[in-house]
Amino acid sequence: MQKTDELLNYGRNVLEQQPFSRMMGTKLTSLSPDLAELRLVIRPELLQQNGFVHGGVLSYLADNVLAFAGGAAMGVPVVTSEFKLNYVRPAVGQELRARASCASKSKSQAVCTLKVFVVADDLEKLCAIGQGTIARLPDAA
Amino acid sequence: MQKTDELLNYGRNVLEQQPFSRMMGTKLTSLSPDLAELRLVIRPELLQQNGFVHGGVLSYLADNVLAFAGGAAMGVPVVTSEFKLNYVRPAVGQELRARASCASKSKSQAVCTLKVFVVADDLEKLCAIGQGTIARLPDAA
Amino acid sequence: MQKTDELLNYGRNVLEQQPFSRMMGTKLTSLSPDLAELRLVIRPELLQQNGFVHGGVLSYLADNVLAFAGGAAMGVPVVTSEFKLNYVRPAVGQELRARASCASKSKSQAVCTLKVFVVADDLEKLCAIGQGTIARLPDAA
Amino acid sequence: MQKTDELLNYGRNVLEQQPFSRMMGTKLTSLSPDLAELRLVIRPELLQQNGFVHGGVLSYLADNVLAFAGGAAMGVPVVTSEFKLNYVRPAVGQELRARASCASKSKSQAVCTLKVFVVADDLEKLCAIGQGTIARLPDAA
Repeated sequence: MQKTDELLNYGRNVLEQQPFSRMMGTKLTSLSPDLAELRLVIRPELLQQNGFVHGGVLSYLADNVLAFAGGAAMGVPVVTSEFKLNYVRPAVGQELRARASCASKSKSQAVCTLKVFVVADDLEKLCAIGQGTIARLPDAA
Repeated sequence: MQKTDELLNYGRNVLEQQPFSRMMGTKLTSLSPDLAELRLVIRPELLQQNGFVHGGVLSYLADNVLAFAGGAAMGVPVVTSEFKLNYVRPAVGQELRARASCASKSKSQAVCTLKVFVVADDLEKLCAIGQGTIARLPDAA
Repeated sequence: MQKTDELLNYGRNVLEQQPFSRMMGTKLTSLSPDLAELRLVIRPELLQQNGFVHGGVLSYLADNVLAFAGGAAMGVPVVTSEFKLNYVRPAVGQELRARASCASKSKSQAVCTLKVFVVADDLEKLCAIGQGTIARLPDAA
Repeated sequence: MQKTDELLNYGRNVLEQQPFSRMMGTKLTSLSPDLAELRLVIRPELLQQNGFVHGGVLSYLADNVLAFAGGAAMGVPVVTSEFKLNYVRPAVGQELRARASCASKSKSQAVCTLKVFVVADDLEKLCAIGQGTIARLPDAA
């Protein structure tokens, strides 16, 4: 458990070093080799023209949570190499939660899957589902 | 040409109605049935921990430019249904430019492709390339 | 259970009507609204130049199992609209097993995920993982 | 031109060593660092239950033509790492033609795009469009 706490603290430090994530207000709420979770409180600036959370906010969470999941699974600094995202429901609610897990890894990369949920009236509803490749940073190889 | 100007004005109005795009500072610089282009000046808040533009910023542009391209090609209100993005170079420079075109369309959806470039020293360099499906909004069908 | 048997029989009938699947030798071994499974015995004609199963065989299984999963979940005739596949291990062994489930569905489409395993020495190993959109056939809408 | 001929001959030799491609009847009709083209005459065994070419045949061509394009651009043996494919029209006609180009490459991988056309009444029509990552074979690195 202590090791998991260390990993979570390490991850939170990385997230804190991302100016864009600070602007977004994202929180890292879980990080282990098996799971990464990001949470983001929905506020008016994150919406699009129909009152839903902007798809780009969901894709930002997808990109980021994949990288945390892949990095935690591989135990090295990483970057997102590619990903794919399907939007399945307009995101309307109070908070977004993005969770990702590593499905397969090698020395150089990890393939991870993710889901983004919106919390509305204390219920989590699936908004987007995706899959991507996380690559070990070249200079760390 | 006048019709294109009308389309561009319509698109800029849509973009202006996206609170998230206002926060990002995105500009719609071209919009026709053949091409959509978004530009975004790079500033410190858009970066990640290594000094590159955050991948989530590129994915936001990808999602958004695909929707503009698909909407302009179909001539109706749309949403992004799904997309895939490959990151091919760290984005370091002064400005991002995302361009998308419709490759195929039906009454209900358009498949579009996109490229995101970073402008550094007056040169455009490819940062990301993607493809996605844009769906006509159900209530507009 | 009887209803599931009917669904499996219906699915096997559809598979039997696919000349390409007959040439491939694919078997539908499970079909319910929650899961579809295809199996394919590996034989020399399915390989590529390095002795692995050809990636195109895996992508064929992916495409097909997604469609069965989406069709069973929606209960209507469908086609694959799009999918994405990551290859994670060379497929070497006696049999391929592709399993897919529906993650989200609407009246017009289902988003499904899949995994392809190779069986070698009685062990299943993950070879490929994917995600895609299955669309209700327009004339069935 | 001689070098291109050598590359085409090399590629045809690779294709000939793929038992699955021999069973399919695929021909490599163009191969250069800028373009790869595969052709496949449509015959009854390649169809699905509605009389269209099976989506798995198109995905096989997609996977394969991406690998040829990436391998020719990088000049080394490769494998397909991942790809995404959108089906945009049922494939009905006499012949399939799949063309791919490299959009970006590094030492270890290439990101390529592809289109699959069906030829019907001497006209090429777009059936599928895709994008993927081609990786240098580890032992060749």
